[in-house]
Amino acid sequence: MKKFVHVCMTPALIDQFDVSEAIVVVIDILRATTTMCVALDNGAEVIVPVENIETCRSYQEHGFLIAGERSGEQLAGFDFGNSPFSFNRETIEDKKLAITTTNGTRAIKAAQDRNAKAIVVGSFCNITALTNWLIKQNEHVCLLCAGWRDNVTLEDTIFAGALARKLRHNFRRFQDTALVAETLFNSANTRKRYFFRNSSHFQRLIHLELQEEVKYAMRRDTHPVIPIMIGDGLYDISFCQDDFQSYVE
Amino acid sequence: MKKFVHVCMTPALIDQFDVSEAIVVVIDILRATTTMCVALDNGAEVIVPVENIETCRSYQEHGFLIAGERSGEQLAGFDFGNSPFSFNRETIEDKKLAITTTNGTRAIKAAQDRNAKAIVVGSFCNITALTNWLIKQNEHVCLLCAGWRDNVTLEDTIFAGALARKLRHNFRRFQDTALVAETLFNSANTRKRYFFRNSSHFQRLIHLELQEEVKYAMRRDTHPVIPIMIGDGLYDISFCQDDFQSYVE
Repeated sequence: MKKFVHVCMTPALIDQFDVSEAIVVVIDILRATTTMCVALDNGAEVIVPVENIETCRSYQEHGFLIAGERSGEQLAGFDFGNSPFSFNRETIEDKKLAITTTNGTRAIKAAQDRNAKAIVVGSFCNITALTNWLIKQNEHVCLLCAGWRDNVTLEDTIFAGALARKLRHNFRRFQDTALVAETLFNSANTRKRYFFRNSSHFQRLIHLELQEEVKYAMRRDTHPVIPIMIGDGLYDISFCQDDFQSYVE
Repeated sequence: MKKFVHVCMTPALIDQFDVSEAIVVVIDILRATTTMCVALDNGAEVIVPVENIETCRSYQEHGFLIAGERSGEQLAGFDFGNSPFSFNRETIEDKKLAITTTNGTRAIKAAQDRNAKAIVVGSFCNITALTNWLIKQNEHVCLLCAGWRDNVTLEDTIFAGALARKLRHNFRRFQDTALVAETLFNSANTRKRYFFRNSSHFQRLIHLELQEEVKYAMRRDTHPVIPIMIGDGLYDISFCQDDFQSYVE
């Protein structure tokens, strides 16, 4: 019997699916999970996602670089904002990073609180690597959209639909949300401009002149890495296969 | 400034939008809200939606007809199941009806608990009458999908999308869910067979040989009535305009 793939459209609905028997893919396309993939692919040793600004700042004393912004502005005293463009090899290779994000971190915590079997991070920039890895694991999968303050957001649902579609021959859909998300992705894929114009979060970012970042977050397979949570941090799975095995078993 | 239209994809997400300043449209296409429109249009005096089977049964002592089923079977001792076909003029005109439904009733209660400004019932069979009425009220609108045990369901989201689309020139969208629902409706409208085949609840009903009821629930404007909650019961708004005014003001 095939395993289930479930699309959870916001963390507020996580209790509809038992994630203790599933790999949870956390999705926060604009921009947390995109940025995380970029930083790990460019050699960051670990990324600790933190909800609170002061907690994030305290990591600096322990030799971490810190990244964060609120309302589009880099936070005072922080090394980086949340732009994926900040994290190139020169700035991040072999460094430890703490990053403060609201929605992405809350989604990770929601999955941890329900004892998810494993937590990985998804974005267009790692979609094919992630698809292949998920198929290989043969576990139930929950695509957890971080959304925005428990609201459903267009870009996270579109990505969940893109991934659900790639998984559909190897998994069964749990409830109707995977079909809703796939349909949305199919429409968005042929009418990008329409969706950009109408999405609330796209609009917020474009207002901040972050068009290039939005475009980059939509590009596929630019960073084929699988970030996985081990303890409080995200690691590149290819450097910690043993740890991962002991974590999920 | 135009008022908001919001699509709430399940009652579990109702707190994302302040319904105390909005008209809530409860949507449970298969089959509660369809059946309610049919019964009121065929002359039922009042319909009391009840979650619990025993509570529903107790209405019989007060001169009510009672309707309800579980897992597709009419309940023992009940006058009707939940089929819209049962409620013709001969059976229901000038009668009081108590009906036990799980998801539809929970959605109504969720809206009542948050002091919704008004609660009405929507289905394809009253979509045009409802659209015109909502536009005339000029209040915020929350399209509340009853879903299935707090899960998002395809058919309720499709209907919310159909209604949101009709309202889009007169209202602003609140968050992205209205756009998600409209997109789903647009796709479903051109590929009905695909959606039927893939939806979980359609499948349950078709398994029970209820194809004709499903088809009927998708037909538009067969019962142009506006059922509105006043106290614990749904009334045809055209017979209680004064009561309605005192309820919403």
